This record gives sequence, C-alpha cells and structure tokens, in this order.
Amino acid sequence: MARIAVTDGMADDAVLILQEAGHEVEFLEKNDQINGFDAVVIRSATKMTNQAISSAPSLQIIGRAGVGVDNIDLVAATNAGILVCNTPSSSTQSVVELTIGHLLASTRHIPAADRDLRSGQWTKKNLKGTELYGKRLGFIGFGRIAQGVGNVAKALGMELHAYDPYLPFEIANEHGCKLHKNVEDLFRNCTHISVHCNLTDETHHLINSRTLSLMPGLGADGTNCGNHIVSCARGGIVNENDVLEALQNGTLSSCALDVFESEPETSHLILQHPKFHGTPHLGAATYEAQKRIGFEMANLLINFFNGITPKSVVNKDVLN
Amino acid sequence: MARIAVTDGMADDAVLILQEAGHEVEFLEKNDQINGFDAVVIRSATKMTNQAISSAPSLQIIGRAGVGVDNIDLVAATNAGILVCNTPSSSTQSVVELTIGHLLASTRHIPAADRDLRSGQWTKKNLKGTELYGKRLGFIGFGRIAQGVGNVAKALGMELHAYDPYLPFEIANEHGCKLHKNVEDLFRNCTHISVHCNLTDETHHLINSRTLSLMPGLGADGTNCGNHIVSCARGGIVNENDVLEALQNGTLSSCALDVFESEPETSHLILQHPKFHGTPHLGAATYEAQKRIGFEMANLLINFFNGITPKSVVNKDVLN
Repeated sequence: MARIAVTDGMADDAVLILQEAGHEVEFLEKNDQINGFDAVVIRSATKMTNQAISSAPSLQIIGRAGVGVDNIDLVAATNAGILVCNTPSSSTQSVVELTIGHLLASTRHIPAADRDLRSGQWTKKNLKGTELYGKRLGFIGFGRIAQGVGNVAKALGMELHAYDPYLPFEIANEHGCKLHKNVEDLFRNCTHISVHCNLTDETHHLINSRTLSLMPGLGADGTNCGNHIVSCARGGIVNENDVLEALQNGTLSSCALDVFESEPETSHLILQHPKFHGTPHLGAATYEAQKRIGFEMANLLINFFNGITPKSVVNKDVLN
Repeated sequence: MARIAVTDGMADDAVLILQEAGHEVEFLEKNDQINGFDAVVIRSATKMTNQAISSAPSLQIIGRAGVGVDNIDLVAATNAGILVCNTPSSSTQSVVELTIGHLLASTRHIPAADRDLRSGQWTKKNLKGTELYGKRLGFIGFGRIAQGVGNVAKALGMELHAYDPYLPFEIANEHGCKLHKNVEDLFRNCTHISVHCNLTDETHHLINSRTLSLMPGLGADGTNCGNHIVSCARGGIVNENDVLEALQNGTLSSCALDVFESEPETSHLILQHPKFHGTPHLGAATYEAQKRIGFEMANLLINFFNGITPKSVVNKDVLN
C-alpha cells in the first residue's frame, strides 16, 4: 500500500480505483506537506521545485496528470531518484477541439460579437470575418495534438504547414503537411499559426516581433485575411508584449491564447485588446480529458507500485 | 442597359462588373425609392413587402444576395411578374465555419472565459467543458450547409443525425448521416442540435420547450455533457423565450445564435444569460462569401438582361 498525495485535483473515479487497489489518497492544498508520501499527483498549478523535491525524501514518483512538465525540476527529480511520469495522450482531443474553436472564434469575431450584443449593440457591419478555407495553417511543432488539429483543419479546407526539427519528413507527409526547414520559412508562408511545441530554451519567445513581421497577411487564396496566432500549448512561447504591439500596429489581425507566460494571468494589457481573446488554460479542462487522465494516472501508479516501470517516464535518465 | 438599385450593399468588384457590362448601379438607403429601377439587389435587411413591390411597377427582378427569401413577399412578386433569385451556394463555407465555431465556443465556454479574463478573473475551475468527440449532432434540415458542417463534425469524431422530410434517404446515407422519421426522434437522440432549415410555417418555433425537453443530456459516449443548441439559419425557428427558460432551468447547457426572430436584436433577455452567446447574423459576413455572392449576383443580372433565365429563380411559378 502506497501513500499518494494529490495537489491539483483528480477525477473521482480515478481516486476510487486507487483506493480499491489498496492505496491511500490524500488531497493537499499545497505541496509543502508531501514528505511521508510515496507519490504525488499534480497538474500544471503545482510547482515541483528543487526545494519541494528535497523536502520529500520519501517520494518515489511524481505523476503529472497532463502533458507539460515545465513546472517540475526534472534534474532535481532525477538526482533524487524520483520518476516523473505524465499522461501524454489523454488530453489530445480536448486540446484539438479548443484550438479549432479558438481559430474560428478569432476569424469570425465570436467573443467580440457577443460582447457587443450583451451591451445592446448590433455591430454586424464592423464584424466581417474571413474563412479558414483556402488558407495556410502553420504548426510550430507537429506532434499528436497538431496532427489532430491538422485533420480537422483539412476538413475545413486549409493547407497544412509545419516546422518541427524533431519530426521525420515521412510523418508530416502522411498527414498531408508540408514540413519547413526553418521557422522563418513557416512564418513567411502562413497567415495562421498554431503553437504546439514544448516550452524550452529554444522555443521561449519564439513568437515575437521579428517572426510575426515575416507573416504574409495575404491568404494563399488571395484573400486579404491578415495574420492570426493561436496557442493552446504553453505560456512563454508567445511573447505577449510583442503580440500586443503587433495587434496594435496591425501586423496581427487576431490572437487567441489559452496559456500565458505568468499564470494565473489577470492583468496583462493584452487581455483588453479588442482583437485578442483568451481562456484560462482550459486545454485539458473537459470531463472527458480529466476522466481519461485520471484513469491513465491511476493505472500507471498501480502498475508502478506493483513493480512495473511506466512507459511515460519523462526523465528517462533516472532509470539508468 | 438596366438600372439596378442596391439597398444592403454589394462587393465593389461585383458593382464594377455590372458597370462594365453597361448597367447603372445606384446605392439606396431604403427601398422606398425603387420605382424606375429594373432590378433591386437586397440582402436580409431590406423587407420586400407587397407594398414595396407594388410601389415599383418597373421592377423585373429582385436579386437576393444570399440565401433566405423570407424577407420577400414571394406571392406579391409572382403576381407582379417579378423574378426573385438568390445566390444559394456562395455563402455555404462561411456558414459551415461559423456553425462549427459556435458549437466549440459553447462547449468550451470561450466567450464566457474571455469575459472573465477581461474582468481580471482566472475562472479555470468554473469552466470545465465537454468534447464534441463521441457525441451526436442532430441537424434540422440536411442541405448543403448541414452537409458541410457534418463533414467537419465527422473529423471531430461526432455521429451525424438529421431530420429532413424533403431529403432522399440515399443523400443522408452518402454523408454517413442517420435520417430520423420525425423531429421528436431527432431531439430524443441528440445532445447537440444545429438548425439548418428555412423559416416556414412548419419550422416556426420548432425549437421550443416541448422539443427541448426531449433531449437526452447524456452523450452517446456516456458523458454527462448536457444539451446544446446552435442556429446560424434563420430567426423565428428557435423560440427564444423557451430557450432562455431552458437555459435557466438547466434543460439546456448552452445556446449559440447567429439569427434572431426580431433583427436587429439588442434587448432580448437571452443575450444576457451566461450560457448564451451570439453573433449579429454573421453567417455570410466574410470577405470570401461577399465576393462570391457579388460575382454570382452580377453574372446572374447580366445574363438576365441578356435574356437568360437564372437557374436560382425562387418563385418558379412566375415563369409559367
């Protein structure tokens, strides 16, 4: 029997599975009382810093219920012999749907239109949009989620382009996606860019004044559709100050963000721009994704405490 | 050379084509000065009542730049020997995209989330959504637009259902869509309903307390996703008072409307409900659709004044 701490919530059904397997599950408000626990299950809100990790010598495994692990000090975890595991595929469909929703909400002014209606204004004449059909969608990173977005975008009549230095050409090809050799080429070719990479030193502020200035504004079908950015990936990849300036000077026609460099974000001026709209990190915030994530995490932990190494170990060095 | 009045605007390129063909184009604010014109081009804002039609004995043709003709008294036009023609396919893709955008904006709370962010609130915990994947999308009317929406919805993993008494079973079958024999069956089977029929006596207030009460709330995949209504078709098919009540009592989890019974709508209480969002009749409000509509209408009028009967005559009796 293992003691499992849960700091950012977990689906009820998943907790039940753990308990039925004989494990003790305790919900904690913070991660400063995790000493004595064998495992901790976190989402994106809990920061597993070197200090937090050092405070709990009992920990054997950190379970990230979700995908991104930039809130975990992987080096500290590895040095302490702690496995870090995530649930990489459980939230894919939810993020795919939110990304398509944000793209269409941007190009058809849905949040702005609703804002106007609520204030008693019928602003049809100011709200002419553009179609996604016939335009080029550029993916920064072309993993599972981007491939899923690509599948829907193709049904909407978009051309797929990507920059992903880690992806074999054949995979992009299978999905009917043109792979570009450098990120500048992607920006030069695409009026619509969707971010789907991890946050790393390489991708930090990759969306900035310089890269935005390369975007064509003119759609592949000849429509003067402007440039559009959407990110449901990770805060910090988009330079929010640069995007705000690009919205102000017309370089960008819209920007939709689900993730922010500093979360919770409630005060950045970009939130107030009429051509911006945002959601508070809702990529995996569906009943379906949370249920799948919970099941995946519960099974992973049960297997782990039965001596089976999870497939989704992020810090593989710890296994050496 | 014909004299053509335009009351609700027309794309510049299309006006140029008409002028280059030798016709005179005049923009009017209202339709009370159309006497003396051979043709009038309208969108949805101009009402061509019996009185308006009687006031202009010179009229030979009414061009509806768009689809719906419920703003035109077809009997009066037919009696006066005036052809009524529309541009049925030019706006299809734009309406398809807006419909998918509204569906996703509803299920992922995009306008509500943006509203909260703008007011400085990070309400992630209140905004859990549901996936479209695995749910049943019920179409009321399964013509060109619904078929286009269905194509994208399939890519999102939805099951397609429809009620359309005028559609041959084979057409629905080709699109992988299950056709229901009565509208009650459609409501009983579908958690998500999208309206794509014309406004007629038969469809007036078809979405009402009784039909809404039949919806299952429980998704086909077992998710407790609630019930969702979207309409980018025509005002008057949805009973807005009944929908508001259904949002208030929990029968409905969301409603998104692009069309309203009384347009411009700026005061109905439904506009203020947190689970409602709307757009001011933006279905065809894209640069692409307006350009296609303009070209289609310009060519139709040029052909008509060269003695060629347009294919898209709505009041076919006038040809007898």
